Amino acid sequence: MTTAPVDGVTEIVDPADPRVDDYRELNSIAVRAEMEGDEFFMGEGYVPIDRMLDSGHRMRSVLLHPKRLKRFLPTMERPEMAGVPVYVAEQEVIAEIVGFNMYRCCLASAYRAPMPTVRELAESCRRIVVLEALNDDQNVGAIARAARAFEIDGIVISPTCNDPYQRRTVRVSMGEILHMPVARAAPEDWPAAIETLHESGFETWAMTPADDAVDLWDLEVPDKVAIVLGAEGHGLEAATMRATTHRVRIPISPVVDSLNVGHAAAVTFAAVGRPRGVRTTA
Amino acid sequence: MTTAPVDGVTEIVDPADPRVDDYRELNSIAVRAEMEGDEFFMGEGYVPIDRMLDSGHRMRSVLLHPKRLKRFLPTMERPEMAGVPVYVAEQEVIAEIVGFNMYRCCLASAYRAPMPTVRELAESCRRIVVLEALNDDQNVGAIARAARAFEIDGIVISPTCNDPYQRRTVRVSMGEILHMPVARAAPEDWPAAIETLHESGFETWAMTPADDAVDLWDLEVPDKVAIVLGAEGHGLEAATMRATTHRVRIPISPVVDSLNVGHAAAVTFAAVGRPRGVRTTA
Repeated sequence: MTTAPVDGVTEIVDPADPRVDDYRELNSIAVRAEMEGDEFFMGEGYVPIDRMLDSGHRMRSVLLHPKRLKRFLPTMERPEMAGVPVYVAEQEVIAEIVGFNMYRCCLASAYRAPMPTVRELAESCRRIVVLEALNDDQNVGAIARAARAFEIDGIVISPTCNDPYQRRTVRVSMGEILHMPVARAAPEDWPAAIETLHESGFETWAMTPADDAVDLWDLEVPDKVAIVLGAEGHGLEAATMRATTHRVRIPISPVVDSLNVGHAAAVTFAAVGRPRGVRTTA
Repeated sequence: MTTAPVDGVTEIVDPADPRVDDYRELNSIAVRAEMEGDEFFMGEGYVPIDRMLDSGHRMRSVLLHPKRLKRFLPTMERPEMAGVPVYVAEQEVIAEIVGFNMYRCCLASAYRAPMPTVRELAESCRRIVVLEALNDDQNVGAIARAARAFEIDGIVISPTCNDPYQRRTVRVSMGEILHMPVARAAPEDWPAAIETLHESGFETWAMTPADDAVDLWDLEVPDKVAIVLGAEGHGLEAATMRATTHRVRIPISPVVDSLNVGHAAAVTFAAVGRPRGVRTTA
């Protein structure tokens, strides 16, 4: 080891050590989904790990390259870290554990908090974003970051949407996904979950580039609104579109097909949250 | 070869064939920057290649996997493709040319159009985005796509900003970057290029998360405005900030540090372009 031993830190020398089983095959989305289930997830990087602790997710363990230890020490002193094992391992050992050559390893495993139901989420929130079948981890993470920035309270994901606690999603969200309640609709409740939102007093806005949808800037923002977004390219399913109260478009130039779904989300969140009042004609 | 010979298509069997020199070491940003200079750039995928032709960039050549040829035939029949060599090569040959195992190869090389000067751009545009030292190809590409969507006319890049014609940038922009004039400020003209914009009648808005900046929604949008964005994390240089006429912030929740720079760009573009007029109090 390149650093002196530190209290409460254990060196891992055998890549097969079961104490680091949480960290295996990190790049295989399918294997990870199976392994993690609804039990745990990965955080990566100093800031996201601090954000994990802030968010109240309970830690399982930490795995670091020895050179990462020094900067991690302040985090180790946080009360939430009491009793949480911190493992260090050399580059080659980490590579065998995670399945690829991971530089600057700074990983944490945390228990997933139980997800609220769609109804529970709807009863506790005023602004919701609904993601149908989004399959790009970066988009989901970036949308979560923008959602927090514009005071969207919660996320509902469709049964086939990407896992919002995927490693890269958590990282791209700058850890913000961990601070939002997420409800996942069951396959038999999709798109019926949209109706559950209506029962809790929500308007639901299906975002679409269709010409005949209502202009985002023309809509009054109700007390409770859910912004419903589909995957880029494919867009929202017809049944989901029909289940919503409004079809809403962001006015864009006719020379461009559509916006990136993350950009569409951010613009809509910003428009919903913008200050209201009497404006003079420009 | 897996397909029958097609008129005007040449098979490449020797990876060292100089006719495909444009396609070498595709994943090395440094090598590519040196090779391409201001002479040529890469397009990738059917739609971006069609967008390249639409944009008036003159083609040098095309390189395809044989299986890609059939869907490419309609593009080959476009008048802009007259005399442009189309090469096909098997998977292993392509891998040796480009330097990695590239599946579904569908690449085109095109001449770079001469860039306008900052002054020429300023005289021909009303809405400009200025990018200082952005170093993420995806962000630059996504910003170009959003810029076109919200009718931003042109892009000014600082001397150290990413090349806007990088392969991945062109792809992420959905080819939209090719439809916008881009001016690159010379090192000795930075941040003086901001002053050039003022001389052409522009207000310049330095986007910043600083609390004491003006709220985006409170600003009247002038006839000519340039939106100035810095790299994520670092933000704009102090000298650049001082050179601008306004410091502008997107109001976001205090619990979040900042927005992704692409999201900040899209929200600002949308706010600048939104319809104006008398609004009633909500």
